[in-house]
Amino acid sequence: MTDRPAIVLLSGGLDSATTMAVARAEDYRVHALSFRYGQRHAVELEAARRVAGALGAERHVVADIDLRSFGGSALTDDLAVPHHERVEELEGQGIPVTYVPARNTVFLSFALAWAETLGADAVFIGVNAVDYSGYPDCRPEFLAAFETMANLATRAGVEGRQHLRIHAPLLTMTKGQIIRRGHQLGVDFGLTHSCYDPAPDGGPCRSCDSCLLRAKGFAEAGLPDPLLTTSDGR
Amino acid sequence: MTDRPAIVLLSGGLDSATTMAVARAEDYRVHALSFRYGQRHAVELEAARRVAGALGAERHVVADIDLRSFGGSALTDDLAVPHHERVEELEGQGIPVTYVPARNTVFLSFALAWAETLGADAVFIGVNAVDYSGYPDCRPEFLAAFETMANLATRAGVEGRQHLRIHAPLLTMTKGQIIRRGHQLGVDFGLTHSCYDPAPDGGPCRSCDSCLLRAKGFAEAGLPDPLLTTSDGR
Repeated sequence: MTDRPAIVLLSGGLDSATTMAVARAEDYRVHALSFRYGQRHAVELEAARRVAGALGAERHVVADIDLRSFGGSALTDDLAVPHHERVEELEGQGIPVTYVPARNTVFLSFALAWAETLGADAVFIGVNAVDYSGYPDCRPEFLAAFETMANLATRAGVEGRQHLRIHAPLLTMTKGQIIRRGHQLGVDFGLTHSCYDPAPDGGPCRSCDSCLLRAKGFAEAGLPDPLLTTSDGR
Repeated sequence: MTDRPAIVLLSGGLDSATTMAVARAEDYRVHALSFRYGQRHAVELEAARRVAGALGAERHVVADIDLRSFGGSALTDDLAVPHHERVEELEGQGIPVTYVPARNTVFLSFALAWAETLGADAVFIGVNAVDYSGYPDCRPEFLAAFETMANLATRAGVEGRQHLRIHAPLLTMTKGQIIRRGHQLGVDFGLTHSCYDPAPDGGPCRSCDSCLLRAKGFAEAGLPDPLLTTSDGR
């Protein structure tokens, strides 16, 4: 165990859970950061809390922000979440309506504020440019530009004491590879939550973009999804 | 009056009031954005509300964010705000304790989210690199890096439909020049608020960094500060 703190953005989904496990495997003291941003589904934050506890976060902060005042996404207002029969239908659909304007920019900005306060030089984010659902702020060129900006924004950057790095360990992995890596690192995917449109009991819909990508990933990894095993007894 | 919307970051201080007046003079429909971020002084938000009304904002949103969870500045926790006798004492003091980690990054990220939702291609911020109190996130290189990042972060940027610009019309002005410009544009500086450590009645302390820079600015501009005229009858 080293003494290096890191901020890990933790949504409660399987990507951020695996990302947190990677940070822990690299001996970072993890400060997990989640957001209450007008999601319709508090179940996401419950999953984040469970994952932070199970993987040994030193601290878990849920920051309140209100992106609803601006509107603009199926995840934060009343637009319908799209459903599909097959994962292939997601290809070439462009940027989906579930995109939240500037969400990763806002999330990373808060992470930067906390990193600077802690003296941390690492921020981990579980974005992925392979099975990335078409979001602009999940691309490597976005992350590189954020890192450049961040090092000009802070006291430590200006004084040359520190160089902040944005770590995106899943960036070039397929969903199957992410699940295998998380599995190796002991992530309990039964604690995670992925669905954009869960049933009243919190169970996954199995037909939103996120459920379809998750199912594809478990199939590729050759592993059962404990979430489905648990809820269905399969 | 054109149909171009713009986001203007509005703190209620004289810089952001002048910036909003510049945006209005350039015929933007102003969407003013302020933050409730754990300031000790609600008087700031009252000033922002008055300025937004007086200068004709189409809409004024106060977004709730909680930077206090991270700690780290005299403006958001219980550190003492430094006081000085003379403005010359501010020179060479480095980055003051009133610096809020990553504050402008967080503010601009929210502005970006709103801009994308509205289809606006302009964000105005009243930062200043001359009398800038030593904050790293008030420098031109920071703003340029933010603009580059922002255009990689958004749907419009990816689709090539729009290029967002960060406008910082006060960037190279002295405080005196800012006050003269605001005065020309009809800004009522009696509505603004600058003090980091106001008296219980909201009156300025006259010895924090911000009060000293404000006084220097009015002296340079050769104008009386209506805030002092009003409260003192001078």
